[in-house]
Amino acid sequence: MNGYSIPKATLGRLPQYLQYLKELSQANVSATAIAKGLSLGEVQVRKDLAVVSGAGKPKVGYERAKLIDDLERHLGYEKYTNAVLVGAGKLGRALLDYDGFEEFGVKIVAGFDCNDQAVQLGKNTKAILPIKDIGTYCAQNDVKLGIVTVGQGSAQDVCDTLVASGIEAIWNFAPCSLKVPAGVLLKQENLALSLAHLNNQISK
Amino acid sequence: MNGYSIPKATLGRLPQYLQYLKELSQANVSATAIAKGLSLGEVQVRKDLAVVSGAGKPKVGYERAKLIDDLERHLGYEKYTNAVLVGAGKLGRALLDYDGFEEFGVKIVAGFDCNDQAVQLGKNTKAILPIKDIGTYCAQNDVKLGIVTVGQGSAQDVCDTLVASGIEAIWNFAPCSLKVPAGVLLKQENLALSLAHLNNQISK
Repeated sequence: MNGYSIPKATLGRLPQYLQYLKELSQANVSATAIAKGLSLGEVQVRKDLAVVSGAGKPKVGYERAKLIDDLERHLGYEKYTNAVLVGAGKLGRALLDYDGFEEFGVKIVAGFDCNDQAVQLGKNTKAILPIKDIGTYCAQNDVKLGIVTVGQGSAQDVCDTLVASGIEAIWNFAPCSLKVPAGVLLKQENLALSLAHLNNQISK
Repeated sequence: MNGYSIPKATLGRLPQYLQYLKELSQANVSATAIAKGLSLGEVQVRKDLAVVSGAGKPKVGYERAKLIDDLERHLGYEKYTNAVLVGAGKLGRALLDYDGFEEFGVKIVAGFDCNDQAVQLGKNTKAILPIKDIGTYCAQNDVKLGIVTVGQGSAQDVCDTLVASGIEAIWNFAPCSLKVPAGVLLKQENLALSLAHLNNQISK
């Protein structure tokens, strides 16, 4: 994990750069092109990339493959973080099946639900295990991240269980505020608020 | 739609206030309590709420019900916006079934997919209609918002179809940049980037 020396605002943009570069196919790319593609200022792009990868070459730009490597290293993608998900409703199952997280350094290794029986959903899908086994599972599998996709009513209980299981970060999709102890990271994902914000901009 | 006179940063916080107030049960609430509950500055809370609802009363605070009404009116929740969703995979179906959007002023009225046949998933779920009918449907049902939950390969085509159907705003879950004409709003939702950002903060 090399990220701590990077300014937070820069860090927040690194995944954008990485995704943009991964979508390209050419060998070299200029700061101008990156800035245009991401609607960022060119000076900002140069500064950001200088932090992780040094400067581009005049008239050539950055070597795309090297820049991708540098970004991935600085984002800590060399070692995958194991995650578990709790709440196997439709959203939970959608996230369990989504492969896109792995290219961003996170593997969802199992899902948990309040059923007592483990469920194997299909050939290519992850098992859904009973929540009572989560502590043992997290300890045995070096799980650091917990994704909460249960309803509002049980979200805090699930959060507490995850924290007790040694989880270091919680990604919460339940539409309510969660309390976590100091030292545990919390990211609130509120899809309804995102949509409300977009809706508000539509003329009526 | 009363939102245009409200500063953008304030506007962005209004759904937070609304959600927080809806979770409470008491008749009156102080700016101090709201600030604490949402980890915002008290001065900021007072300023934000002054824009939509005037000042609270000394020693009493704001009347919660009135404040909720004022927030909802300013957020344009008096008239629901009709939305359609394209791409009936797991994420799409999860969003179709989610009721939480309605309390934020948006109704997903139908889903569309590339199948030629309409599918009625269950008693309480919305129909999934063939994409070829989307233009007619949107015109007949005053649809203003389109949600894109197809894969990266077909997202731009779907976006173009939505724009041609008279959609005013696109909420894109496909992990790629979309081009929309001037006058059409676009909000990119990238769940993987959210998770990457959280992952990056975990010590390794």
